[in-house]
Amino acid sequence: MESFLVYSGGSFVRTSREHVVSGPFDGKPFARTWLAGVEEFEQSVVAAVAAFAGLKKMHAFERSSILREISEKITAREEVFAGIIAREAAKPWRYALAEVRRAAQTFFVASEEARRLPGEILSLDWTPEAAGREGLVKYFPIGPVAGISPFNFPLNLAVHKIAPAIAAGCPIVLKPASSTPLSTLELAKIIDETALPKGAVSILPMDRKTGNRLVTDERFRLLSFTGSPEVGWKMKEDAGKKKVVLELGGNAGTIVGASADLDHAVKRCLVGGFAYQGQVCIHAQRIFVHRSLFGTFAEKLVEGVRKLNYGDPLSPETDITVMIDEGNAKRVEAWIAEASEAGATVLCGSGRNGNYVEPTIITGAGPGMKVFDEEVFGPVVTLNAFDDFREAIKMVNNSLFGLQAGVFTNKVDELDMAFNELEVGGVIHNDTPIFRTDHMPYGGVKDSGLGREGVKYAMLDMLEPRILVKTIKNQ
Amino acid sequence: MESFLVYSGGSFVRTSREHVVSGPFDGKPFARTWLAGVEEFEQSVVAAVAAFAGLKKMHAFERSSILREISEKITAREEVFAGIIAREAAKPWRYALAEVRRAAQTFFVASEEARRLPGEILSLDWTPEAAGREGLVKYFPIGPVAGISPFNFPLNLAVHKIAPAIAAGCPIVLKPASSTPLSTLELAKIIDETALPKGAVSILPMDRKTGNRLVTDERFRLLSFTGSPEVGWKMKEDAGKKKVVLELGGNAGTIVGASADLDHAVKRCLVGGFAYQGQVCIHAQRIFVHRSLFGTFAEKLVEGVRKLNYGDPLSPETDITVMIDEGNAKRVEAWIAEASEAGATVLCGSGRNGNYVEPTIITGAGPGMKVFDEEVFGPVVTLNAFDDFREAIKMVNNSLFGLQAGVFTNKVDELDMAFNELEVGGVIHNDTPIFRTDHMPYGGVKDSGLGREGVKYAMLDMLEPRILVKTIKNQ
Amino acid sequence: MESFLVYSGGSFVRTSREHVVSGPFDGKPFARTWLAGVEEFEQSVVAAVAAFAGLKKMHAFERSSILREISEKITAREEVFAGIIAREAAKPWRYALAEVRRAAQTFFVASEEARRLPGEILSLDWTPEAAGREGLVKYFPIGPVAGISPFNFPLNLAVHKIAPAIAAGCPIVLKPASSTPLSTLELAKIIDETALPKGAVSILPMDRKTGNRLVTDERFRLLSFTGSPEVGWKMKEDAGKKKVVLELGGNAGTIVGASADLDHAVKRCLVGGFAYQGQVCIHAQRIFVHRSLFGTFAEKLVEGVRKLNYGDPLSPETDITVMIDEGNAKRVEAWIAEASEAGATVLCGSGRNGNYVEPTIITGAGPGMKVFDEEVFGPVVTLNAFDDFREAIKMVNNSLFGLQAGVFTNKVDELDMAFNELEVGGVIHNDTPIFRTDHMPYGGVKDSGLGREGVKYAMLDMLEPRILVKTIKNQ
Amino acid sequence: MESFLVYSGGSFVRTSREHVVSGPFDGKPFARTWLAGVEEFEQSVVAAVAAFAGLKKMHAFERSSILREISEKITAREEVFAGIIAREAAKPWRYALAEVRRAAQTFFVASEEARRLPGEILSLDWTPEAAGREGLVKYFPIGPVAGISPFNFPLNLAVHKIAPAIAAGCPIVLKPASSTPLSTLELAKIIDETALPKGAVSILPMDRKTGNRLVTDERFRLLSFTGSPEVGWKMKEDAGKKKVVLELGGNAGTIVGASADLDHAVKRCLVGGFAYQGQVCIHAQRIFVHRSLFGTFAEKLVEGVRKLNYGDPLSPETDITVMIDEGNAKRVEAWIAEASEAGATVLCGSGRNGNYVEPTIITGAGPGMKVFDEEVFGPVVTLNAFDDFREAIKMVNNSLFGLQAGVFTNKVDELDMAFNELEVGGVIHNDTPIFRTDHMPYGGVKDSGLGREGVKYAMLDMLEPRILVKTIKNQ
Repeated sequence: MESFLVYSGGSFVRTSREHVVSGPFDGKPFARTWLAGVEEFEQSVVAAVAAFAGLKKMHAFERSSILREISEKITAREEVFAGIIAREAAKPWRYALAEVRRAAQTFFVASEEARRLPGEILSLDWTPEAAGREGLVKYFPIGPVAGISPFNFPLNLAVHKIAPAIAAGCPIVLKPASSTPLSTLELAKIIDETALPKGAVSILPMDRKTGNRLVTDERFRLLSFTGSPEVGWKMKEDAGKKKVVLELGGNAGTIVGASADLDHAVKRCLVGGFAYQGQVCIHAQRIFVHRSLFGTFAEKLVEGVRKLNYGDPLSPETDITVMIDEGNAKRVEAWIAEASEAGATVLCGSGRNGNYVEPTIITGAGPGMKVFDEEVFGPVVTLNAFDDFREAIKMVNNSLFGLQAGVFTNKVDELDMAFNELEVGGVIHNDTPIFRTDHMPYGGVKDSGLGREGVKYAMLDMLEPRILVKTIKNQ
Repeated sequence: MESFLVYSGGSFVRTSREHVVSGPFDGKPFARTWLAGVEEFEQSVVAAVAAFAGLKKMHAFERSSILREISEKITAREEVFAGIIAREAAKPWRYALAEVRRAAQTFFVASEEARRLPGEILSLDWTPEAAGREGLVKYFPIGPVAGISPFNFPLNLAVHKIAPAIAAGCPIVLKPASSTPLSTLELAKIIDETALPKGAVSILPMDRKTGNRLVTDERFRLLSFTGSPEVGWKMKEDAGKKKVVLELGGNAGTIVGASADLDHAVKRCLVGGFAYQGQVCIHAQRIFVHRSLFGTFAEKLVEGVRKLNYGDPLSPETDITVMIDEGNAKRVEAWIAEASEAGATVLCGSGRNGNYVEPTIITGAGPGMKVFDEEVFGPVVTLNAFDDFREAIKMVNNSLFGLQAGVFTNKVDELDMAFNELEVGGVIHNDTPIFRTDHMPYGGVKDSGLGREGVKYAMLDMLEPRILVKTIKNQ
Repeated sequence: MESFLVYSGGSFVRTSREHVVSGPFDGKPFARTWLAGVEEFEQSVVAAVAAFAGLKKMHAFERSSILREISEKITAREEVFAGIIAREAAKPWRYALAEVRRAAQTFFVASEEARRLPGEILSLDWTPEAAGREGLVKYFPIGPVAGISPFNFPLNLAVHKIAPAIAAGCPIVLKPASSTPLSTLELAKIIDETALPKGAVSILPMDRKTGNRLVTDERFRLLSFTGSPEVGWKMKEDAGKKKVVLELGGNAGTIVGASADLDHAVKRCLVGGFAYQGQVCIHAQRIFVHRSLFGTFAEKLVEGVRKLNYGDPLSPETDITVMIDEGNAKRVEAWIAEASEAGATVLCGSGRNGNYVEPTIITGAGPGMKVFDEEVFGPVVTLNAFDDFREAIKMVNNSLFGLQAGVFTNKVDELDMAFNELEVGGVIHNDTPIFRTDHMPYGGVKDSGLGREGVKYAMLDMLEPRILVKTIKNQ
Repeated sequence: MESFLVYSGGSFVRTSREHVVSGPFDGKPFARTWLAGVEEFEQSVVAAVAAFAGLKKMHAFERSSILREISEKITAREEVFAGIIAREAAKPWRYALAEVRRAAQTFFVASEEARRLPGEILSLDWTPEAAGREGLVKYFPIGPVAGISPFNFPLNLAVHKIAPAIAAGCPIVLKPASSTPLSTLELAKIIDETALPKGAVSILPMDRKTGNRLVTDERFRLLSFTGSPEVGWKMKEDAGKKKVVLELGGNAGTIVGASADLDHAVKRCLVGGFAYQGQVCIHAQRIFVHRSLFGTFAEKLVEGVRKLNYGDPLSPETDITVMIDEGNAKRVEAWIAEASEAGATVLCGSGRNGNYVEPTIITGAGPGMKVFDEEVFGPVVTLNAFDDFREAIKMVNNSLFGLQAGVFTNKVDELDMAFNELEVGGVIHNDTPIFRTDHMPYGGVKDSGLGREGVKYAMLDMLEPRILVKTIKNQ
């Protein structure tokens, strides 16, 4: 059984608490790591504070070349990383490999952004009182950053915190999900080989209580959390003076308008609805289809779901596999049952077996049912018909959440309405909400979060503007 | 008969060459001005060079408040200006008043842009050789500007050179069209009341030979010309070392797609095709209508044209009146005849009377006919049907020119294709090419010109970037 | 005694709790207003939520012209406003008038920014997976904003919340300081005359308990607070899911380097140290002077302080007058005594009389004394000598706070060091930290706050980016 | 003798005119290439026009990865390239290698910029007439580009045209200098291996007459020329309708102020004055030293020059070697003689031997002498003393040229004056004008040129903005 040491303050360490990781697919322990305790936490924070002095003095080309080195080394070991992810997260190989490639790309983008910090010169002499003044605005790293990342993209969602932090010149202490800590610890080996000051990055698997120090410790200037809404919003309360970025979830909506290319829409909804068993923040949970297409759409989607290939995540043939754990599978099962009892129809999906939930499509769901109102984070989509496009917009907006939304349409006025009226962080045209590319601004409104990630956007929260009001001598 | 003195180097002067201005509508002389000669030209250039020293030292709030003052004074006298324009250019009152308001707006926009010169801080340390270097980029006025403006918007197209020049800190010597010099000379009175250094602005009506010194004199750092293509491109050759901005004309195309709102399209094409007798650079000259709508469109457009009210430009009721001169009217008459002889059909328009040409709609025109290939600059539009949207794009692009184009459509893919494929400076959605608002980037490609105007964009050509490579001591 | 009605949800109302306002200078009641209770608060919030629908649909020119109208009307009544401020806040007339002019300018800047919301087009096709995607990012108003403003700039610091909110399209409910509510209620009269939807702005004097609803009510999407650090940071904890902007105070440092123009530095430190009795967030509290200049500097500063003219704030001759209340005067007196007892020397300032504290200069103060470590918010400055510029930087940074800092120097390396090393939001060259112009980014780091104001910067927190991921059909 | 085929329209070809290249150092023929004639020129242009259709449709990641591939392959073969440059241009090995690395960096920067074309969304509804309009501005490649590059940086100055063209999506036909065509033809081999459409890049050594077709042929939309002022400005006249970018030379000035670090200044002036025998556009030709430092400076500079190591450019020990040809060496010799006869003093430099000119330092030169007024483009610097900084600025500005200038100072007011007053494209702080890093904006004013290069800046001239005026339906 392979061991993955904790990466604390620039050293790989064992701690007193061994933590065995089992694969959700076969339930077998396959690797060992350790949980950091208060001691390692303290060591990491002290090292981060110390590393900041060096980090903030690094030249742009230094930060940039370190990030590029990491990117290239991830690529060189992409199959190793994909294997770890497939195993620890039960992510089908194809999606695991895609995640690794995205992580390499995220570091690559950061290697560019590290050289491209914003900076502007402002004329200040807009009034006689400010005659002779000129403003120079530069951006400076804020200091140590605390990062907490989830199980569903165990590598790339951690990288979306680590890479911008290095690019901005901020040290970071990151807590991966306890169920999936291995891919980031594998990454730590690569990071450790670079010229980064020791302590610039720490990767600490922790229990929740110890991990909560990331939220409350005032030596951090920013908390960046990706995870569930309840946990995230509570952290905001406890975060003290630090800035808080929250990337939470939602029950994202997709609208299929009357002018949509039906086959294309079905194909994309299969991916958006069932990739990684729906355990994706921007999972296409609620699909609204124009009544003229509804019947055919439902039929074809069911047909598509039936062709999904169940199996071992390590197999390249696998489309769908188990959920992260039985607790979640049971929750999803219960939500489906609740909807069914309340009058909704299950078009396909015959239920749960252990931590496997069969891909499920539900019609007739609506407000009041958890599968419609809350984040299902499982292989379930709801289908509803609509008559008027504006009505579909309202149904998508009728949610506590607002991360992304998908809109299939070829009408200019519908697309304008969708972009201008949907209360979300991103509207995806002719695709489902699941689309993301790693340099785009990404994040939610309403209960779905606070702030934006996407390398450059994540960096902006890790930087503080400072203006020099220059006085120009009258010459 | 009112007299308008020449504004040369900060003084209002008479010269040895009186120039009587007659109104195109009734042909009667109604005002007197003078043509500047070599002496006044020289005086203006010397004063411009001298004024530059003061202009470039002015604080932002000083340039800004002068521009705002001019804007407000134009507004206060808008009826005076509109009367002059209506008379000198035979522009129907409604359009003349709109032009004056746009001129006030252009100065207002410039009063903002005067305080908003760009400026950026660049990290330069992308390689070890540049460690410790930081770039500060500021923009500095280039020096005296030569402006030449046309008859058709005698005030606002001159203002599109004068206002940016003041905002950027550049002196300007402007030659208005000889047929319509009065509105800019009226403007000179307002400019003269401001705190601008004397000589910062000169307005010189000149004959073409004297005016050509604006092109060749090396003391100017920029020539900004709005007028006809042949003249403009020749000037580029003769302009020596100075920068050249050319705002020329075209034979702009409009596409009415199958999904268009027909009545709206007809209404807008009436304006785009016949406002100011078509004497507009972005006149909707060539209209391509989807075959499914063609018959109805043609019928309704003819009907609309028949309702246009002919009359004295000074009357608020007038929609259409005479052209600028008989020479142009005869040219347009001949072009219509040429098309007709070559097989095109004149749907409406019964010809010329003096310098009046009746609004004319032609179907069946095409390549090889002047009304299709060249800039008609008169009250003539051609109508053609198309079957495939891509074909319509090709027909619009089948031109030496590329200023703006109009596209009526509610299909996303058509609008994307139009934006990405039309070889023009601006694509106007659900309107004809005639749309312009004064702060937007405006200008043509191919034979339609070089560079962009639109206050901020015009200013960019009047400014020169300068980088300070700052060396930061390692501290 | 003049009455100022509460402006709640678009109506001017009396409430059940009368609130009499007395002038700090003579202690006499001079005006009456009312405190809003839960009922008015609720009315205002409901109206704000309702107004949002209208506000967010307004065209740019509509929001812009309303803001310009308000700016012009403030200017037209500038003496009325200055009189109110002088009286309610005991602000010397000269400074009161300057504040009113800045408030007019703040609205004017907002009238420009209302038309200049950011927006960008991003190429997204950086990887094969994103081929054919294009990103359009626009900014949308977030919804109702809660504002809380302090007594020291009772008009302009409220305006720095109201004007950006209108410009961004967000309704706002603002609580002015209870001691100085009148100038904002006077402003409400002007706002009410505009075409803003009723309820877009409410001005509610409230007791602290009722006012705290602004912090906790989840219908607000942003809390923007200007005031004291303890209060501000507590609010951040209680703010729930909303964004929080905090503009707090500090104990700002000023460095006078060996190359400084001594007379200029003294002159500016007199203003920075004693304008409005030091009751300014960016008051020049701690002055560090190079040893070579220290003696002369201290002498001249004391001499300058002795010439300050004490008197009625309504007199244009007055330089200095009473503090806001006796509690604060006593606190300042106690802090001076503490420093004195701990060994510091009081160069000038003979103590307190009622709510008047004589301008005080202290040498020999240092860490451990409140006048050095905390925000004195009174007419007190400390002077210390330094030998090495780097040492001076460290002394300024040796603070919990970091709002602005002043640096008098003519050396490039010192200015670079100051800009790159001072842990503040703004470094003011050849002036004290007190410099601010209303469109510049303004705000603090460390305990001095979170986020930036300055119209455009304040607006960015009131706007939410939304990306449209456009899918371009391969054509 | 190695052969380098001409790269025309995607094919490597021989032509009827063999062209033997000799090394300036030993005068011996060492390689063979061919001159393109009218036929190859025509083939290249036709292929460029054809390639444009494919180029402009490429995804960002495609253009980007091609540019990165070229960059990496240059690096992989850097010694081969350095050997060619050292030999064909008589460039000392150290400088030749540095040039190759810069060329690789230039392509790398272009690989980033290819994904970062600008694009903005503008609110257009600033007036009621524009209500409901929104502007989207994107940038499109203009079409085929003509490039002409000089002998002195035979690789990197060609790359500064080729790399931006590919990044922008424009085909390019480039003429290298006839004396140094080999390094670009070597580059062609790498370019040919990429997925670029055939004809996207052609490299055509040509005689001047044939090469002039690049200037006059209207199928090119831009002429980008780097070379001598006379030739460049004449091309501008002949260029027809195409845009013109001119990177010409100058007689750059350097100011050494009284506060300068003398040893540092001497060290940098040795490089700025004598690197590549002064055959650099931004050669530090005229050095102005504050009188307090003048004597010591002159002494140390002479001392430094005496230590320069003469030898074979292929040797890594060589600091200085022969000029490009005897004609230029004779010209420089004559200019030195002219200065000497007019009263200037030659501090060091004993004249010419074949095409070698000994590094020469002249004091007492001034206006009226060619070594002061014109571009010497050889190993000659002039030294003058000044008393007042403003006077030094005037001396630098007393020139027809304005490319870059160097300023050694530690005074804020002097640096401000230098940045704000020097009439140049770039002011280099604490270094000579010779500093350039490849992503910074670079170019001259006055007779030194038109426009800016530096990848992103070069691309801007290869792109045309197009605005979509979107009409948003009122919903």
